[in-house]
Amino acid sequence: MLAEIAHIGADPRGGYLRPGYGHEDRELREWFGAHAEARGLEVHRDVNGIVWAWWRPRGSAGPAVVTGSHLDSVPGGGGYDGPLGVASALAAVDLLRERGVTPSRPVALAVFPEEEGSRFGLACLGSRLMAGAVAPERALALKDRDGTTLAEALIRDGLDPRHVGMDRESLDGIGCFVELHVEQGRGLIDLGHPIAVGSSILGHGRWRITVDGQGNHAGTTLMADRRDPMVAAARMVVAIREVARDVPDARATVGRIEPVPGGTNVIASRVSFWLDARHPEDAVTAALVTRIRDSVERIAAEEGCRADVREESLSPTVDFDRSLRAELRAALPGAPELGSGAGHDAGVMAGAIPTGMLFVRNPTGVSHAPEELVEDADAELDAMSG
Amino acid sequence: MLAEIAHIGADPRGGYLRPGYGHEDRELREWFGAHAEARGLEVHRDVNGIVWAWWRPRGSAGPAVVTGSHLDSVPGGGGYDGPLGVASALAAVDLLRERGVTPSRPVALAVFPEEEGSRFGLACLGSRLMAGAVAPERALALKDRDGTTLAEALIRDGLDPRHVGMDRESLDGIGCFVELHVEQGRGLIDLGHPIAVGSSILGHGRWRITVDGQGNHAGTTLMADRRDPMVAAARMVVAIREVARDVPDARATVGRIEPVPGGTNVIASRVSFWLDARHPEDAVTAALVTRIRDSVERIAAEEGCRADVREESLSPTVDFDRSLRAELRAALPGAPELGSGAGHDAGVMAGAIPTGMLFVRNPTGVSHAPEELVEDADAELDAMSG
Repeated sequence: MLAEIAHIGADPRGGYLRPGYGHEDRELREWFGAHAEARGLEVHRDVNGIVWAWWRPRGSAGPAVVTGSHLDSVPGGGGYDGPLGVASALAAVDLLRERGVTPSRPVALAVFPEEEGSRFGLACLGSRLMAGAVAPERALALKDRDGTTLAEALIRDGLDPRHVGMDRESLDGIGCFVELHVEQGRGLIDLGHPIAVGSSILGHGRWRITVDGQGNHAGTTLMADRRDPMVAAARMVVAIREVARDVPDARATVGRIEPVPGGTNVIASRVSFWLDARHPEDAVTAALVTRIRDSVERIAAEEGCRADVREESLSPTVDFDRSLRAELRAALPGAPELGSGAGHDAGVMAGAIPTGMLFVRNPTGVSHAPEELVEDADAELDAMSG
Repeated sequence: MLAEIAHIGADPRGGYLRPGYGHEDRELREWFGAHAEARGLEVHRDVNGIVWAWWRPRGSAGPAVVTGSHLDSVPGGGGYDGPLGVASALAAVDLLRERGVTPSRPVALAVFPEEEGSRFGLACLGSRLMAGAVAPERALALKDRDGTTLAEALIRDGLDPRHVGMDRESLDGIGCFVELHVEQGRGLIDLGHPIAVGSSILGHGRWRITVDGQGNHAGTTLMADRRDPMVAAARMVVAIREVARDVPDARATVGRIEPVPGGTNVIASRVSFWLDARHPEDAVTAALVTRIRDSVERIAAEEGCRADVREESLSPTVDFDRSLRAELRAALPGAPELGSGAGHDAGVMAGAIPTGMLFVRNPTGVSHAPEELVEDADAELDAMSG
């Protein structure tokens, strides 16, 4: 199934570029819808843009068992982060039917929009809206790099911005949600296992750091007369790495930086960059960011610049539902439990309904990059047949 | 006159954005053409896109006296860098005529395209082509950020790429070229003078530095497992400043940096940035860049990355024509001589014809930024009336 979408949103720099609510997103949604309808599932897109495919076998009753993931990608992302969970959900329906299993509860497959937050800067946007984890008015005002608001993007994508937000009725119809996902680290390589049960999601947040200095001519301004925000930002990027190295289990990353005006022969007047920081303990994340903020302010002052650190998102560490974890472990004897350093829609949904995750081994250990990989044998591992 | 073009190419982030061969460039050229024609000058655009306005008084003969400058700007640039020299050239024609002065030699006003190199990365593109300081085939293959080649841009702009290149016949018709320009540093502020005669142009060059590491997920990749080109590039930016600080009179700047893929929750796989380095002595510039190259390679190795340093342009220090300088000093008694840290078309033309420059005081000392300024009284200073 993944081969069918391998051509959609190929990033010219390698990997995939599939931002939320764009034409790639629509093509991927159509691919999912066609597969779901071919299986006789009832497909609909809800007020928050989440696509649902329902299997309601005759006689099934009670809250639904939901599985699924997302189809959007980071810039230059791999082919498995998201799509693996969606394709596996479709394959699971096929497998149950082949074996003549008729679920006693309704089953739903879900595809969440803008999980990566690559376009509007807020990860897990669809699940946050559904679970009430972001205020609709805040979400609708988010802008992409071209200045388009989420409200505008939703209208262009056929949704009504007035209707987005917490969807209590749909949540009440869900008994549990299990998201299957490619592992994004080396845990299963080191353990020598093909699959793990998710235990928790690392708390993480995103901060925008803006450094203002004095724009000037690169040739005529003596080194001593400069207040160069690029040098200040570079020292901050190095300091962030040093602080994070110093705190066991912490991760801090700067992956995006934007100088203004960005000319080669111009000392920048402003440099903005983004900090992604994570740690299993929320208090440690907070302390880490405080230390980073102190370093940023000290460096800005030393360089004659001003710095502003603004939180764009912050999610606490999430532990998955204990009884669901026990059920998953029972179905997968010998499978280890692993925490996730990455955020997922399952982490957001855990605030509203019982939620769990399954991770499939990634033999490169690399994710959010074209090298991301899943072996067919691992993806096709079948709990029921042992 | 400058007020008439104040609205053209306003950069939404402040200042001006007037890249070469774009629609702003065309509007500015039309403004110049209209002013020149209103004065009865004969306007034409040559094979390299340089606009000329000729004043050939009856009886004038011999090689022409040329003045002028450019109309393009860096991103976020000021309103005087370039346009001051063009408007002053027009004003000088008016002043000579008001006084009834009939030049004995032909006079030409010149507007050079893409002086800043903001679009195609090579500064003084028009004068380099005319003076034979860049091979046409190399220039035509240059690409802007959208991947458009200079050859394509020239065609869209009504020029024939087959005809660009050294223009021996036109050069032979020029006796001397004097470019008037806003000063881009604090020299005239410190000296308390409104105008200076240019002595030389600092040697300078531009290098593209590309750092390759391992793209990966920002949350799942432990700090110890990273080969992050952003951290490596940040250390290089800091090292470049330290090396330049250590060498008297050296300037080294990083104003542009581009991570790939540039996502907030992605460790970059590649970071490119540009080094602008200058020193009055070419041997010192070369030594400076060698030291920077050594630092870049050492840091890349320490960070598990690979770095590539590629020269994009290199111009030696240029001394302006001695007899022309003496004439200018005689016309401006008491005016100091100043070198320029910035490159100019006059510096390139100096390789082909006798060339000089005049610098007008900039009370902010800031250039390539919206704060760039010239007082009317300084701009209107009139050598002939004392």
